[in-house]
Amino acid sequence: METLRTDLPLTGDPASDAEAGLVEDELQRFFADAKLGAVAVGAPYLALWEALERAAAGGGRSRPRLVLLAYRHLGGTDTRTAARLAASYELLHSALIVHDDVIDRDVVRRGVPNVSGSYRTKALREGAAPALAEHAGATAGILAGDLALSGAYRLLRSLDVSQSIDRRLHDILDEAVFSAVGGEVFDVEFSRSARMPSLEDITKTAHQKTAVYSFEAPLQAGAVLAGAPDSAVAALKSFGRFAGITYQLVDDILGVFGGEDSTGKTGWGDLREGKRTVLLAYAATRPQWNSIASLIGTPDLGARDAEHIRTVLVTCGAKDFAVGLADEYAQRALSHLESDGVPAALRGRLRRLLLAVVAGVRTA
Amino acid sequence: METLRTDLPLTGDPASDAEAGLVEDELQRFFADAKLGAVAVGAPYLALWEALERAAAGGGRSRPRLVLLAYRHLGGTDTRTAARLAASYELLHSALIVHDDVIDRDVVRRGVPNVSGSYRTKALREGAAPALAEHAGATAGILAGDLALSGAYRLLRSLDVSQSIDRRLHDILDEAVFSAVGGEVFDVEFSRSARMPSLEDITKTAHQKTAVYSFEAPLQAGAVLAGAPDSAVAALKSFGRFAGITYQLVDDILGVFGGEDSTGKTGWGDLREGKRTVLLAYAATRPQWNSIASLIGTPDLGARDAEHIRTVLVTCGAKDFAVGLADEYAQRALSHLESDGVPAALRGRLRRLLLAVVAGVRTA
Repeated sequence: METLRTDLPLTGDPASDAEAGLVEDELQRFFADAKLGAVAVGAPYLALWEALERAAAGGGRSRPRLVLLAYRHLGGTDTRTAARLAASYELLHSALIVHDDVIDRDVVRRGVPNVSGSYRTKALREGAAPALAEHAGATAGILAGDLALSGAYRLLRSLDVSQSIDRRLHDILDEAVFSAVGGEVFDVEFSRSARMPSLEDITKTAHQKTAVYSFEAPLQAGAVLAGAPDSAVAALKSFGRFAGITYQLVDDILGVFGGEDSTGKTGWGDLREGKRTVLLAYAATRPQWNSIASLIGTPDLGARDAEHIRTVLVTCGAKDFAVGLADEYAQRALSHLESDGVPAALRGRLRRLLLAVVAGVRTA
Repeated sequence: METLRTDLPLTGDPASDAEAGLVEDELQRFFADAKLGAVAVGAPYLALWEALERAAAGGGRSRPRLVLLAYRHLGGTDTRTAARLAASYELLHSALIVHDDVIDRDVVRRGVPNVSGSYRTKALREGAAPALAEHAGATAGILAGDLALSGAYRLLRSLDVSQSIDRRLHDILDEAVFSAVGGEVFDVEFSRSARMPSLEDITKTAHQKTAVYSFEAPLQAGAVLAGAPDSAVAALKSFGRFAGITYQLVDDILGVFGGEDSTGKTGWGDLREGKRTVLLAYAATRPQWNSIASLIGTPDLGARDAEHIRTVLVTCGAKDFAVGLADEYAQRALSHLESDGVPAALRGRLRRLLLAVVAGVRTA
């Protein structure tokens, strides 16, 4: 139902911050070109592009930063080209979250109205009935997401690289889209079913929906653009897979135990939605489940219910289990970095990154 | 709100039919590959790909046929590569109609349930409430459309062509997506507004929404792949622009006057929806408008109301005006074929094609 809420702890590193500035430049140029074309079509089209640009602003740029991290550490020197590749992953991310928000009927992201939310509000202000206003929001979200998806391909194709690198980069992007949609299909399926999915189903969905496009693909793409050996690309792909699952597990734990500050959410939104997480899948196998099953997924679930559920998730061992699983996936991720192709500096950087994430969940 | 319902009269030409067979092969291969990947993810993902494949089946393949027509007549000989390029336009078409159907809340296309319709029906059968079932349909439509859009880019990139041709083909596809979404934004805007758009607004929207991706882009792409001179590419682009608008005008006239047989619709669906067409934009400027304005766009509009509206559209001159305008655009389209770059055989073929379309509306 949700994409990751927690940004990777990549900000604050001067090299990464400087590169991220170049990504902003690329995105700004992309949107400036698009808006110029949209103005010629008419004001409502410009407005949609502006809404998409706002939706793409303000994130932690985790995916672009992973592209650039791999690129720089694997000997890449054409940072401007890498920044454009990185920007294409940010547009892919925008496409997926804008459509995801339509599917989840979310109208807010990062504390501000998203594309659907802002169009819905506009329609309501203009006197539309609630159902029509919601549909106006969904329509804008569908179209804006299409523009972002097409934009991701456009930026990628505009790179000045050899045909063989171009093909590999496109294959990686295609695979990212293919997996993300596949993961979303399962996510939607689980959220509709009364049955609790298995642990395997949950980690598999996390892999398909999040790990591939947010970790595997950006790291691989950066490595391929840098001309890294196949062993390094393969190692980063495997690292990305398990790091991505780790992240999703951590994100799910923080969604219940993280409190409002760290995720920008109320701290029980996931419980109210009945989001299928490892916490719940584990708890559902324990006798204590009966005391919370009927609360989870109820629209009027409040702070006291949430506190009760948290207590049960701790006492039945679900929290420890989930934290342990996150640890385990983190270790599996790190083991893949022990490849000859991965330079020590990159290994160290990715290790610190992942351990910081897992440490965050220990104190939650 | 609608994309074109009338297929181009391109079937029955042996050369075109043979080429269309190659397009089917390409599409079949594309879906076979995708389904193989989807099986590995799981059954619900395979089901979504199958729904998309069904949605992409059975159309007239007008856009692929235009790609191949231009390609063959401009000296292209690698028909297999051209068929793949052509298939990418069919996938783009699928992406746009699948998302368009979600936006229009249409659940049927070509007489059978579309992606959203089949998922909606499935959800209803499984006991979902109507609103939830509709949302399940919309969700499937959004995701399937994303897959088709990504697939259009994937097929295009898989062509074995020079980098310069590859760039030009991608630019043409990008422009097609950009225009189609822009046109959809206006279409949606008009359908929500009580105000009748101007004739200029309607033809501009027809250009953006339909002409670019259905006519301009396929013809240009076929010409570029064939290595045609710039003059031919430019001439086909201009022809496509005006031919596309002609087509939309004809389609709108048939939507009201064509009866059930030629369009597969009831013959008053457009009137019930209040679809903004040149017929209505003209009629709204005539005194007789008062006798039909309150009927148009009413959900319970029936056969007798439709007959009354048709009579008024004839007596107030709207039908003649629309037919005349279609004629005028057809002539403008044909004038662009008088370029040195356009071979006589291609000119003759496109002329016959367009005149047959316009002739169809004269007898309606």
